[in-house]
Amino acid sequence: ILYTANKIGIKKIFKVGGAQAVAGMAHGTISIPKVDKIFGPGNQFVTCAKQLVSMQDVAIDMPAGPSEVLVIADDKCNPAFVAADMLSQAEHGKDSQAILLTGSHNVMETVQVELEKQLNLLPRKELAAEALKNSKIILLNDEDIMTFSNMYAPEHLIISTANYNELMMRVTSAGSVFLGNYAPESAGDYASGTNHTLPTNGYARAYSGVTLDSYCKKISYQEITKEGILNIGSAIEIMAEAEQLDAHKNAVTLRIEDAKK
Amino acid sequence: ILYTANKIGIKKIFKVGGAQAVAGMAHGTISIPKVDKIFGPGNQFVTCAKQLVSMQDVAIDMPAGPSEVLVIADDKCNPAFVAADMLSQAEHGKDSQAILLTGSHNVMETVQVELEKQLNLLPRKELAAEALKNSKIILLNDEDIMTFSNMYAPEHLIISTANYNELMMRVTSAGSVFLGNYAPESAGDYASGTNHTLPTNGYARAYSGVTLDSYCKKISYQEITKEGILNIGSAIEIMAEAEQLDAHKNAVTLRIEDAKK
Repeated sequence: ILYTANKIGIKKIFKVGGAQAVAGMAHGTISIPKVDKIFGPGNQFVTCAKQLVSMQDVAIDMPAGPSEVLVIADDKCNPAFVAADMLSQAEHGKDSQAILLTGSHNVMETVQVELEKQLNLLPRKELAAEALKNSKIILLNDEDIMTFSNMYAPEHLIISTANYNELMMRVTSAGSVFLGNYAPESAGDYASGTNHTLPTNGYARAYSGVTLDSYCKKISYQEITKEGILNIGSAIEIMAEAEQLDAHKNAVTLRIEDAKK
Repeated sequence: ILYTANKIGIKKIFKVGGAQAVAGMAHGTISIPKVDKIFGPGNQFVTCAKQLVSMQDVAIDMPAGPSEVLVIADDKCNPAFVAADMLSQAEHGKDSQAILLTGSHNVMETVQVELEKQLNLLPRKELAAEALKNSKIILLNDEDIMTFSNMYAPEHLIISTANYNELMMRVTSAGSVFLGNYAPESAGDYASGTNHTLPTNGYARAYSGVTLDSYCKKISYQEITKEGILNIGSAIEIMAEAEQLDAHKNAVTLRIEDAKK
């Protein structure tokens, strides 16, 4: 991070975290300047802090809270991979959720066996076991699978099916989508380059993950000529009059009179 | 609105407004379906309602509250136009604010005279007079004018100076910018086509006005081949291990082993 920051000219770095860091950035402290926008994921306390300060005059990227994954798998999946992906999510914390949607009884059963086998080998197995209590393997037919997924709007969506190229076209809400058998969520977390600050808890129905665009502002500019105000002026006068906003109308009337000179 | 909605296939229109409409859309009622994102400007109650529901699982465009304009003017401005633009803002409500920045004593004085003259002719003159109490004419040198404007981050910025093309390049924060003597804010409100749901109260430092982009979501997709996971897999393993996330690592290790077969 320091290397990249230096490359792009970032000179101020503060080694703070948690809800108190959000408060510091939102309001400013003796050592931390007040910022305009706060980015990045966190636990439920960080998310709550970000949402609270967004009520004041600081912007946030999105409410990115406890993490979740939804896996869609068919008989072409590798059940050990699916279980490992679900456990990757589960080990994040006991408020994480991993969902598997499948049309296959066989996948349901083999993933269940793999989950138990792999869970026992994890150092964080107690945490992951807690998260698995919130998690579900759901048997659905093909039509209902995409409907469920789009309503759930998962932060991470892994599609481990033979027809993943077809299913991806039907995704309407998700944070980040992983296709095929060789794209685990941890690739997105660490190496493949996609951002992993993503909308959770159904927010992917309305929010996008962090991209370069999250750092851009769009400002509209308009210049009107004398000829232009003579062309559109009367429309403005009529609309302003209808809304009984006389000063709005007058700002145009004065200009029309001047432009006619 | 109905004509355009019909053109683009919008079939459901609800004739409601105010904070109660925001609540209805956020939570759903018998007649109004729950929505994913709420757009549009409003008074302080609407803004507060939008911010409150954005703490739950509904997104909002931005906190667009009571309106404001900042006018930058020099001796090439038309003081009657500037006063009319300030009054256009003032007549919105007593919590509106109009700011004039100028380096010219003459502009300051002539605009003041015009303000009094035009105010007396307005049907809403009492409301506008209240708003003018929150408003300011500020004498600043050229350098400080753009610094002030960018810190204030006005919803509407009108640049009525000879060198408006130069000053516009130095705008870093504003909702919508109006250039020259013939572009009143009411043109943007009613006819010129730019959106007038804009960030207020300094939010233009971080937020943009509503554009088509406000209705878009960006979803990232990734597919990794066997060769790909063999290439980047060890980086993921090292990072996951450093963070003591064994399941994250295992999701990759299993795939590397499989890909090597």
